[in-house]
Amino acid sequence: MTEIPIAKPILALNDRFAAANRELLDSHGIFMLDLIASPGAGKTSTILATIDALRDTYSIAVIEGDIASDIDSRKIKEQGIPAVQINTGGICHLEARMVSQALEVLDLASLDLIIVENVGNLVCPTDFYLGEDCKVVILSVPEGHDKPPKYPGVFQVAQAVILNKIDTMPVFDFDERQFRVDVEHINPRALIFPISTTKGRGIKTWAQWLAAQIEVSRRKQGRSLHATDNH
Amino acid sequence: MTEIPIAKPILALNDRFAAANRELLDSHGIFMLDLIASPGAGKTSTILATIDALRDTYSIAVIEGDIASDIDSRKIKEQGIPAVQINTGGICHLEARMVSQALEVLDLASLDLIIVENVGNLVCPTDFYLGEDCKVVILSVPEGHDKPPKYPGVFQVAQAVILNKIDTMPVFDFDERQFRVDVEHINPRALIFPISTTKGRGIKTWAQWLAAQIEVSRRKQGRSLHATDNH
Repeated sequence: MTEIPIAKPILALNDRFAAANRELLDSHGIFMLDLIASPGAGKTSTILATIDALRDTYSIAVIEGDIASDIDSRKIKEQGIPAVQINTGGICHLEARMVSQALEVLDLASLDLIIVENVGNLVCPTDFYLGEDCKVVILSVPEGHDKPPKYPGVFQVAQAVILNKIDTMPVFDFDERQFRVDVEHINPRALIFPISTTKGRGIKTWAQWLAAQIEVSRRKQGRSLHATDNH
Repeated sequence: MTEIPIAKPILALNDRFAAANRELLDSHGIFMLDLIASPGAGKTSTILATIDALRDTYSIAVIEGDIASDIDSRKIKEQGIPAVQINTGGICHLEARMVSQALEVLDLASLDLIIVENVGNLVCPTDFYLGEDCKVVILSVPEGHDKPPKYPGVFQVAQAVILNKIDTMPVFDFDERQFRVDVEHINPRALIFPISTTKGRGIKTWAQWLAAQIEVSRRKQGRSLHATDNH
């Protein structure tokens, strides 16, 4: 309905930073995941559960994007995992330039996997390529099953959809069948991972899929987990 | 951390449209509420409950802002309430210009109250004045009590904070005391209305507050409910 004419130049500038990030990550054989969700869908708890599942296999760091506060990055650091806080100062999404500054702080030579927790926002982070290997969206059951047709963009770009808080399904009127039909309609390639971080359900399957993506990416680069210079 | 240099001109242009909206609303004695929340916090169900509580007193219309789909506006129209759908085509917030187009469609002479359901987003709608009398934010219990310090902007601009889905408090680890402390710290003027739209709890108190705001606004304009030309 209304076009903001500056969107294209901003995205073009962003893509140049993103390409540089990608090159840097490739040079170190690092897989980067961009995790997108609404506020309170469970991004940080999903990251903590993923760290728990994969920390014996991969060396992990987290980039925390927030409007304000360092509540989430403190939770990550408490687990002994390197975390870089980006406070966007009101900006509603992470941009590749912000991530490039975070990458400068991390010890890339020691890392296999960087998980980016984007700003809590189901809309704006969709358009910004950060140099990641894949975007994954988390929807939580209390948000309602009708979100894919209402926020189609993020479901279109996501390679996987995590459905969190499945333990609360009896409390909410969540139609999982309709949710699956809608996701399939918007993005037939996307896999759906039902999880509950509080109950520890579904984490293993999700983490195995993520590990498989990391391995596929390494193979494509002619690398394998045990044949890098980094280990 | 990163500044988007075009933000100020966009906001200045927006404010010109917003001022025109305000003038138009004043000329008809209409109160406009801008309702902001994350996806799935319960904006539409709160609007439906508010309509139910106030439709005998005020003539109400709804402007529905969505990225895509008309799921919500159909729900409003089913209640016999005029609803105008704005599909932002991917834009993450409503702008005053979009609202001005919606106002052209409505029969303003017959209205007392317009409720604007902004795009599901706790960040971007904060900065855009639409010409409304007040902004109100809805947080839902499943999103977590830590959202005010993480998304302070919207809690700063809101005149009232609705806490929805309070019936699910036993399911979630929601610290209401901490939530209230944080809201008070960020915005001491903001009132907090705990509600459950599914259980019908707290709606009356919230609706009474909204009615009081409408009456105060009318008195300021030298109008009263029963002394307008509209009735």
